[in-house]
Amino acid sequence: MLPCDQEPKHHSLNTNDQNIAHVSDIEEIIQALRKFRDERDWVQFHNAKDLALALNIEAGELLETFLWKAPEQADVGSVKEELADVITFALLLADKYDLDVKQIVLEKMAKNAQKYPVEKSKGSAKKYTKL
Amino acid sequence: MLPCDQEPKHHSLNTNDQNIAHVSDIEEIIQALRKFRDERDWVQFHNAKDLALALNIEAGELLETFLWKAPEQADVGSVKEELADVITFALLLADKYDLDVKQIVLEKMAKNAQKYPVEKSKGSAKKYTKL
Amino acid sequence: MLPCDQEPKHHSLNTNDQNIAHVSDIEEIIQALRKFRDERDWVQFHNAKDLALALNIEAGELLETFLWKAPEQADVGSVKEELADVITFALLLADKYDLDVKQIVLEKMAKNAQKYPVEKSKGSAKKYTKL
Amino acid sequence: MLPCDQEPKHHSLNTNDQNIAHVSDIEEIIQALRKFRDERDWVQFHNAKDLALALNIEAGELLETFLWKAPEQADVGSVKEELADVITFALLLADKYDLDVKQIVLEKMAKNAQKYPVEKSKGSAKKYTKL
Repeated sequence: MLPCDQEPKHHSLNTNDQNIAHVSDIEEIIQALRKFRDERDWVQFHNAKDLALALNIEAGELLETFLWKAPEQADVGSVKEELADVITFALLLADKYDLDVKQIVLEKMAKNAQKYPVEKSKGSAKKYTKL
Repeated sequence: MLPCDQEPKHHSLNTNDQNIAHVSDIEEIIQALRKFRDERDWVQFHNAKDLALALNIEAGELLETFLWKAPEQADVGSVKEELADVITFALLLADKYDLDVKQIVLEKMAKNAQKYPVEKSKGSAKKYTKL
Repeated sequence: MLPCDQEPKHHSLNTNDQNIAHVSDIEEIIQALRKFRDERDWVQFHNAKDLALALNIEAGELLETFLWKAPEQADVGSVKEELADVITFALLLADKYDLDVKQIVLEKMAKNAQKYPVEKSKGSAKKYTKL
Repeated sequence: MLPCDQEPKHHSLNTNDQNIAHVSDIEEIIQALRKFRDERDWVQFHNAKDLALALNIEAGELLETFLWKAPEQADVGSVKEELADVITFALLLADKYDLDVKQIVLEKMAKNAQKYPVEKSKGSAKKYTKL
């Protein structure tokens, strides 16, 4: 774990809590993933494009757990493992670009809120281009 | 949204910090995603299988930001948005199965540590089946 | 093999050649795929949506042959097998909708020719929306 | 475009038909795709890895036509166009490696016939690893 003063952006937002720095759970996972990667000297392979390939490959394996099945028939253990792989590469890619996962998801949601205003999109599965 | 004291698993692990319950970053994002979804009455469409489809579709859009390009030529703004979409559906799927994201990623990493022992996999991009 | 007079659309276009009906190679592959499927009683699983899932899963496996590699490092034997799987599901899906593969590809090419006029797109990898 | 007599492998197998060389449907589509590509000077971008990316991206767009829908609700016009794009990149990739599409599909089917013997797989959607 990196000492807190090297990672100021991930401190707790709780300003009452001055003596204790919280590493967010996302940052904690990313740190574990970096460690795993670096022990194996794999950073050399982890260019952004191949990370995006890896993410797609794992997304395909996740999809396979649902193939020829009704949604509720998928094996949960397999979903769990394949989803873990997807998230692994998503976080490694976010880390590659030094993106703050919470921030980019919330920003995209704000953008989607404009594409999909509640009054137009409520109860509808249509794409925003067809609303 | 549930008050914090009903969500004990997401409390801070910091036991010195007794009065303040911390919702984890991941839980915070998931809560925002649920709110966005429920305002639009979209839970009816979000069966696990279609969430896995959506994740794959977004992964494909992320991949497109790298198409016909060297890794460093991808537009960072586009990567950011497409990655946000991927993470959105990954978290909605995790939430669907009530999975703890940190736990499943760390468990999968432990499993991968056995498939890819450091001494065999160091500096190698080979799949574990070929190590 | 179906008798020729039941499959008039796949006759040779060569009108000089009146006595010999040619089944196109695409039709020949599709007939073999149908036979394989029907011997196993699999048509019940092959709804269009799951065929599209299967195609994506196989496309992901094809992509894996290129992961962490330069394009020319992919194992050709693996590319061959995974590409065969992709084409299998593409043809089964075309067959599901009774689409004529040659026709739909040529029609899409005509449409792309308008999106990508030679004078604008020559030597450029830009998407038509950015030309 | 090569005249037919330079492409003997794609002649009709019909030996009664000595004077007329038939270019197979697949070869005809590939020739049209090559022409389209070369008019735009795009062969420089079409390395095998990026072709595999393009194929995955198009497969994702095809999948999107089924998102949040029952199989029969997909818009056929969209399926047609996205499937055409998938087949386009599948054929360009086959051409890149000089693979004979009919041959690789039939060879893979023969391999699958061993993984999925009729007596074990009839009426079952299980993966061969679970039969």
